[in-house]
Amino acid sequence: MAKDKKQKIRRPSAQTPKGFRDYFGSEVDQRNAMLAQIAAVYHRYGFDPLESSAVETVEALGKFLPDVDRPNEGVFAWQEDADDNKPGDWLALRYDLTAPLARVFAQHRNDLPTPYRRYAMGPVWRNEKPGPGRFRQFYQCDADTVGSASVAADAEICAMLADTLEAVGIPRGDYIIRVNNRKVLNGVLETMGLVGEDTAARDAVLRTIDKFDKVGENGVRELLTKGRLDASGAYIDGVGLTDEQAGPVIAFLTSKGGDTATTLANLRVAVGQSQTGLSGVDELETIADLLAAQGYGPDRIEIDPSVVRGLGYYTGPVYEAELTFEILDEKGRKRQFGSVAGGGRYDDLVKRFTGQEVPGTGISIGVDRLLAALHAKGRLNSQASGPVVVTVMDRDRMADYQTMAAELRSAGIRAEVYLGNPKNFGNQLKYADKRQSPVAVIEGTDEHDRGVVQIKDLALGARLAAEMTTNEEWKSQPAQMEIKRGDLVDEVRRMIARAENADG
Amino acid sequence: MAKDKKQKIRRPSAQTPKGFRDYFGSEVDQRNAMLAQIAAVYHRYGFDPLESSAVETVEALGKFLPDVDRPNEGVFAWQEDADDNKPGDWLALRYDLTAPLARVFAQHRNDLPTPYRRYAMGPVWRNEKPGPGRFRQFYQCDADTVGSASVAADAEICAMLADTLEAVGIPRGDYIIRVNNRKVLNGVLETMGLVGEDTAARDAVLRTIDKFDKVGENGVRELLTKGRLDASGAYIDGVGLTDEQAGPVIAFLTSKGGDTATTLANLRVAVGQSQTGLSGVDELETIADLLAAQGYGPDRIEIDPSVVRGLGYYTGPVYEAELTFEILDEKGRKRQFGSVAGGGRYDDLVKRFTGQEVPGTGISIGVDRLLAALHAKGRLNSQASGPVVVTVMDRDRMADYQTMAAELRSAGIRAEVYLGNPKNFGNQLKYADKRQSPVAVIEGTDEHDRGVVQIKDLALGARLAAEMTTNEEWKSQPAQMEIKRGDLVDEVRRMIARAENADG
Repeated sequence: MAKDKKQKIRRPSAQTPKGFRDYFGSEVDQRNAMLAQIAAVYHRYGFDPLESSAVETVEALGKFLPDVDRPNEGVFAWQEDADDNKPGDWLALRYDLTAPLARVFAQHRNDLPTPYRRYAMGPVWRNEKPGPGRFRQFYQCDADTVGSASVAADAEICAMLADTLEAVGIPRGDYIIRVNNRKVLNGVLETMGLVGEDTAARDAVLRTIDKFDKVGENGVRELLTKGRLDASGAYIDGVGLTDEQAGPVIAFLTSKGGDTATTLANLRVAVGQSQTGLSGVDELETIADLLAAQGYGPDRIEIDPSVVRGLGYYTGPVYEAELTFEILDEKGRKRQFGSVAGGGRYDDLVKRFTGQEVPGTGISIGVDRLLAALHAKGRLNSQASGPVVVTVMDRDRMADYQTMAAELRSAGIRAEVYLGNPKNFGNQLKYADKRQSPVAVIEGTDEHDRGVVQIKDLALGARLAAEMTTNEEWKSQPAQMEIKRGDLVDEVRRMIARAENADG
Repeated sequence: MAKDKKQKIRRPSAQTPKGFRDYFGSEVDQRNAMLAQIAAVYHRYGFDPLESSAVETVEALGKFLPDVDRPNEGVFAWQEDADDNKPGDWLALRYDLTAPLARVFAQHRNDLPTPYRRYAMGPVWRNEKPGPGRFRQFYQCDADTVGSASVAADAEICAMLADTLEAVGIPRGDYIIRVNNRKVLNGVLETMGLVGEDTAARDAVLRTIDKFDKVGENGVRELLTKGRLDASGAYIDGVGLTDEQAGPVIAFLTSKGGDTATTLANLRVAVGQSQTGLSGVDELETIADLLAAQGYGPDRIEIDPSVVRGLGYYTGPVYEAELTFEILDEKGRKRQFGSVAGGGRYDDLVKRFTGQEVPGTGISIGVDRLLAALHAKGRLNSQASGPVVVTVMDRDRMADYQTMAAELRSAGIRAEVYLGNPKNFGNQLKYADKRQSPVAVIEGTDEHDRGVVQIKDLALGARLAAEMTTNEEWKSQPAQMEIKRGDLVDEVRRMIARAENADG
């Protein structure tokens, strides 16, 4: 019996599931504001919004998950109830916005324009082990052009990405968009004889290239040949190529020259006689030319063969946007902020559905990382603008207080009445502080009878308290003043403006 | 072997799961615009945005699902993988925004202000049988005040709802917000002796009241007493009350008078000596007074005891917003558009987590229904504004075409270059039509050499074709004209303005 009773009052735990989080107030506002800025740029470029369902059949999602070792895992999935003895479909939450785009384009291809430029913004879900700063639900913000084989589409995406970064507040000079091409790498692999059926050796080379960011030129050379002692003292087996065989890969990765022409010339050497490689270099040249003609020089978008992220996944040009300014990491060390967006061209987006090859190219912007970057640079006001709080001195005159708040709102001023228990006036001011309220309005019976109200500059009050200023200053800028009831809107507006000026 | 091969080329079906759908272009834009309009009103009232995770533990969600017969079902749920032999938690997609609010407030109550005004907008998921127009993922848009027992909070929610409806484009006179109170009904039940342990009889009465909308006064009277022959000829058993016993319920439901004072007087009669009932009537009076003082008369917000939706779920005041204009239903019959928002007061929001009773009150707006209403009234422009399409006459001059599009965009004009195969020029114009493009830009080698471009008014072209106008008119308003390359931006802007004026 006693046990039963205990079980009955067992309370559920008020916790988000592991790896999930909530976003409050200005976090939501700032993200929405950024998404709106990005959408405005995408819209101007002729991209249309698409909001696909968050839930897809597992079959439609396919084994598409990029950058993950276990492509079949990593999703949240469940089985539908059986219907008429037919087993239910397996459904899953989308893990990115590209797999749903493939399904949407295959499903609606007769109604959609071709090429189809679309953007999509929304949460995606990954069933992965959560870690610090690593969540299982996060925002993606994608733009793709489906159905165009022209590298003009790739150039357009790069230009749009540059415009987008500037629109959200990353000035020119603080970012660089780097462009590489999987076809060039394919040419290099061709010259090495690593094409056709022998996928094992090719995959080993691709995996090694992926480490270029971390281990650099010498590291990649060792890993391609005899192997390497890593920082932890462990010995990593090499791919087993000779130094000569590894040469073209190293030449490819390090072919960036002082200007675009030099880089392209170096790449032409690296790909040798490979037609695939040469056509890849031509594509990069075309992209650079198209961008230069529109004023996007290598100070903003440059050809850089050392960009390796995504080379294993995409089939043509790949792009990556990096922020180049330095921030302090958790340990106080300076480091570059790094990547905030990436993408590239893929040529079999809908083939698995329709059998038809439809090329596509696009980018994904890491909105949360961009927000973090703006925070790190102090370019986002993390202080939300709280409402004016109308306090309640006399519980019976709630109608008067609500009318004051309504007057303020009608004038466009954010305002609310304190709706907790009004007995303890100190609690009302504490509440106003917690709300980051700029101004409190106070009207007791005495004020009401005299046709006046008190307004209190809470921002100034906090500053005066913090700065321990002298009495003189306090008097010259009183934190609280009595005004005529009829002047409420004007005087509150003036007080807010004063507080904002002092802040700026 | 043959079978194996067949399995390999079996293609996945490109379909949304049953009951899900995608939203394209202007559907997304219009909903986002409406959400922004609603958020602006909520913000002005001092409400803060909250974006909780879409995924909750099943334990935290609880058996909270309103308006559903099987509260434990109806969610999409799955079990986490086991961890160290501990069975994984059951997770689920949220089915509304109120259950997550309860979890969030219980989890973060020490950091949140009290009262906590919050709004939330986003998709929710219901694992129900889909039907026509009934989807398993849909938007909710909620505002709640947590931690205030004052009916001033209820009055504020009603005023805010009225402001919101007007902000999204429902003019005064086209909506009515009706307010009732569960406490008054409780008083009625008290006078009938239906309180305390005998929940069966009380629940039977509550279920009957819920049918008032459909069966009206006589129907409810029959169902409360001897039973009723319904329209299909089936006999529905009655609750078994005498006519006299059923009287107070009927009096309650029909107590709406010609003005607020009469309604309140009728309600005071209906609740007899019940203290609960009288305090409920007092609450309604206070709400009406607070609203009247701020200018919200019964033309916008009225006390109406015939509002029964939610009376079984909420614990105090309940509200429902209805659009009062008529639309034509699928069968061409006139009918009132009906409910677009509803809500009320609940007093045990977080008790299941903390043991502490925290009152709350709030509304949920059906954004998709509101959008449908605006469409039905022709108040939403369903035609999206397509981009200017720069056509490709000469594949080698892509840089010129992209530069034209960039110039137009810099001037704030939505513009894109045709990126499909340019060989068939007719296809390019068909594409522009599908994009609802207002203007096409055409520049062949000849034009290029002469420093001119052709611009084609596609909107006018379509209109001329449709209206079969005479040659004279065509000539006076040419659908295509040659302009100087340097005048591109100005002339395109002029042509778009002309098209928009003709539309308006």
